[in-house]
Amino acid sequence: MNITLIGAGNLATRLGICLKSNNHNIVQVYSRTEESAKKLGDILETDFTNNAAEINTISVIYIVSVSDSAIETVLSSIDFRDKLIVHTAGSVPMAVLSGYSKNFGVFYPLQTFSKEREVDFSKIPICVEANSSENLKILISLGDSISNDVRQIDSEQRKQIHLSAVFVCNFVNHFFTIGAELLKEKCVDYEILKPLIQETAQKATEFSPKTVQTGPAVRFDKNIIEKQLKMLEGHPEWQELYKLVSESIHRLYK
Amino acid sequence: MNITLIGAGNLATRLGICLKSNNHNIVQVYSRTEESAKKLGDILETDFTNNAAEINTISVIYIVSVSDSAIETVLSSIDFRDKLIVHTAGSVPMAVLSGYSKNFGVFYPLQTFSKEREVDFSKIPICVEANSSENLKILISLGDSISNDVRQIDSEQRKQIHLSAVFVCNFVNHFFTIGAELLKEKCVDYEILKPLIQETAQKATEFSPKTVQTGPAVRFDKNIIEKQLKMLEGHPEWQELYKLVSESIHRLYK
Repeated sequence: MNITLIGAGNLATRLGICLKSNNHNIVQVYSRTEESAKKLGDILETDFTNNAAEINTISVIYIVSVSDSAIETVLSSIDFRDKLIVHTAGSVPMAVLSGYSKNFGVFYPLQTFSKEREVDFSKIPICVEANSSENLKILISLGDSISNDVRQIDSEQRKQIHLSAVFVCNFVNHFFTIGAELLKEKCVDYEILKPLIQETAQKATEFSPKTVQTGPAVRFDKNIIEKQLKMLEGHPEWQELYKLVSESIHRLYK
Repeated sequence: MNITLIGAGNLATRLGICLKSNNHNIVQVYSRTEESAKKLGDILETDFTNNAAEINTISVIYIVSVSDSAIETVLSSIDFRDKLIVHTAGSVPMAVLSGYSKNFGVFYPLQTFSKEREVDFSKIPICVEANSSENLKILISLGDSISNDVRQIDSEQRKQIHLSAVFVCNFVNHFFTIGAELLKEKCVDYEILKPLIQETAQKATEFSPKTVQTGPAVRFDKNIIEKQLKMLEGHPEWQELYKLVSESIHRLYK
């Protein structure tokens, strides 16, 4: 399938590499900054531009993968000639695309992406939505070409999935970061946490996480909770987080 | 090695099963409630009691694995005749054992345990500490018999490791729970989150979590943050958590 990538960030990079390796033809990469456009163009061995007027007209799909707040600015600078345009954002309703083409949809891979880290797209849930059954078919077919888990999800559900993802990915990663920083203060190697991190995630994929909670907060072990709050006195922000999360856990199980 | 288990909770259960399968002789299980003592005694096919006076005197090690706040109560009810006693708690200093035997130490496996869930002890870091080099040798030898990762960790470091574990395990699991609850409200299958949960953990074991943060908070995407806060209006507690964690992320990277 002839595809143009609008955007050259983490998701555009990983998706572009995956699409190319699955025999799609990445016709062109567009980014507002020449350097980013060139970098991804070089990775994908394809044409690139930072000039919206130079965007090709031969693609079947134009995948707009820029930060959520930039989508409309970028779209308004390009003439899509009613070709199929999709965005890849969790929180942006499909309807925002309606002003820029008669054919539009959403192609949202639910995963955390970093430019340098390879991911296995075959296991990534792809949430698709389109303005017509014909466009939906195209997006399902595109999804099927790279993943075994393509789902039809409407804008309302996708928004909630994205909110949920912020908790289970970004916020979780922040707690990994706090955990690592705490160890550094006592010269303990971060590596010691890895089996625990892996098991915590593994458990949450085999059971409902609510049923496998452990630790002082769920036991409401006031003694430890107070000791640990005291240990966090040098970090009032983490102390406040500790307090709130412990209370939240306690309320859920009491 | 002849071993007595004092306690029959999650950790005592999994540790007992692991020790037995590595050819240690679990002489007896003690628990304050007869039902728990019998249950674990049956699992380990060994003697059990809920009468402190009946505890055997032939073990090399007495492993005290009860909730942190119960350790001293349990210890004071038993005459250990100066045998080696160890506790398995993260937050309890080794020194609390000094009043109950001349030989004491700590044997702390850093992992989250549930009674029903099998875990691979060979990868679990075992933090050991003892009151003498002789006792330390015994604990290292016991640790080596079940794990490839035995570390000498003092009480101060162990306390910090436990605090860190509360963030990366218990608090993380609570965010998995919130993520699952949010999906349920929109009839989205929790299963959709699993690849994201796995990748988030996997990334944190291959990189420093601080360097791989993604999402609206680290980009300081005010637009999404405000929309998502609004979506949480029905859950003031989660809304407050969202706000605090996002601010904490933002401050770390700005």
